[in-house]
Amino acid sequence: MAEILRAAPATAWRALDEHHTLYLELPAGRVVIELAPAMAPRTVANSEALVRLRYFDGLSILRVQDNFVAQWGDPDETRKVPAEMLKLPPEFTVPLGGTVITSLPDRDGYAPQVGFVNGFPAASDPASGRAWLAHCYGAVGVGRATEPDSGNGAELYAVIGNAPRQLDRNVTVVGRVRQGIELLSSLPRGGAEMGFYAKPAERTPITSVRLADELPVAARTHLEVLRTDTPTFTALVEARRNRRDEWYQAPAGYIDLCSVPVPVRALHD
Amino acid sequence: MAEILRAAPATAWRALDEHHTLYLELPAGRVVIELAPAMAPRTVANSEALVRLRYFDGLSILRVQDNFVAQWGDPDETRKVPAEMLKLPPEFTVPLGGTVITSLPDRDGYAPQVGFVNGFPAASDPASGRAWLAHCYGAVGVGRATEPDSGNGAELYAVIGNAPRQLDRNVTVVGRVRQGIELLSSLPRGGAEMGFYAKPAERTPITSVRLADELPVAARTHLEVLRTDTPTFTALVEARRNRRDEWYQAPAGYIDLCSVPVPVRALHD
Repeated sequence: MAEILRAAPATAWRALDEHHTLYLELPAGRVVIELAPAMAPRTVANSEALVRLRYFDGLSILRVQDNFVAQWGDPDETRKVPAEMLKLPPEFTVPLGGTVITSLPDRDGYAPQVGFVNGFPAASDPASGRAWLAHCYGAVGVGRATEPDSGNGAELYAVIGNAPRQLDRNVTVVGRVRQGIELLSSLPRGGAEMGFYAKPAERTPITSVRLADELPVAARTHLEVLRTDTPTFTALVEARRNRRDEWYQAPAGYIDLCSVPVPVRALHD
Repeated sequence: MAEILRAAPATAWRALDEHHTLYLELPAGRVVIELAPAMAPRTVANSEALVRLRYFDGLSILRVQDNFVAQWGDPDETRKVPAEMLKLPPEFTVPLGGTVITSLPDRDGYAPQVGFVNGFPAASDPASGRAWLAHCYGAVGVGRATEPDSGNGAELYAVIGNAPRQLDRNVTVVGRVRQGIELLSSLPRGGAEMGFYAKPAERTPITSVRLADELPVAARTHLEVLRTDTPTFTALVEARRNRRDEWYQAPAGYIDLCSVPVPVRALHD
């Protein structure tokens, strides 16, 4: 993989979209989340509006369930979500028509087609004409209650365990952690039901959440992500399907969607 | 799932095999690992012999790589592995003949057949006549160098991320964490290459490793695991393939091997 990346032209990389990238600032550091407005336009807009209202500042990571998710929001309901933002039509899927998915060569039991949309793992069903982002490690989704329209982007989670693909098409996925997932995945697990913390003092405070474009350029984290619609990425997928490293005795000849790495690097590395 | 487990007869559960269960004692608590001697007889025997020699006591967790593994052993090579234990023929797979796998209804890209052997996720290939344990979350495997026979059970790892199924048939898997995986998965990630800790002081010390049967009965952790060859387990798999919880809008109609939960409970719960 290192070999393939070294040989990649500069055009195989793209910068993160700084208008749609969140910095979740925790005491231990920054988690960089790239949003995917094309795959959940209203929900992403809602979350971004809440960020610009400083809704998340001072809230906390309230739930860390092992092999599942780390979730943040307003456990004590101290903040008001503006009335017009309270309920949103769910965006569990979007029309396949406008979505260009670079397909993987392998089949997946959770969807007829799987691949990548602009660097985000995704799936689609030509029969229903729908596409959706997949719950891979680092996926960021929108917590909701039982009602499908109850997720408004004020409570978010990141996947920190084995890909919970059963959530696909049941939750609006808004993006993916591009850097700093380990600041969430290494947090102490919550001891109450579903990984919620039993005591408020156990929660991890959120210093702030900002959009990248709100910060001075020098304060931003400048990252590039490998374009997933390039020959470089195709070569990388094949190198992972059949590992040629000397260590491997039995290459798998297959790769599942969530095992495909999407390389990220500091800009001008 | 809770409903199905409540309705399960006592015979749907079995106690862990206390002759083949390890207690990895860390400052934060106990990790309970059940070994699978049927699937890696020599390597399990080697690891157990090392435990009885107190080989692991005072060693450390030396590598925690995010979304991959937590690994323990002897980073400074202060301990001697007895010469006759140094090299082992690899047990990446075993003959399918003697292995009873309860198959899952769904196909898997990594193997022609997948299912469970005595509570352990496993795969098999009738064409080659081999079976092997699968790298699901919590799987415990044997670290090795490039030479296939270089894994002797003195360095072990547990999977703490998305199932790295590409390791299947490339590593000897000896068992699975049945309780306490969060004590490994929430450890700080190592900052050096491959998640190794850059400084010895960052490592987590291992208080001791014991076989359950070495401890007085009162000091053991008495767990039962759901038998995976029972109607209860079949019902549980189906309930997970098609989630009936009110929350789910779109049941997946599918489950991958590593997303199937294998319930564990305290004895006489």
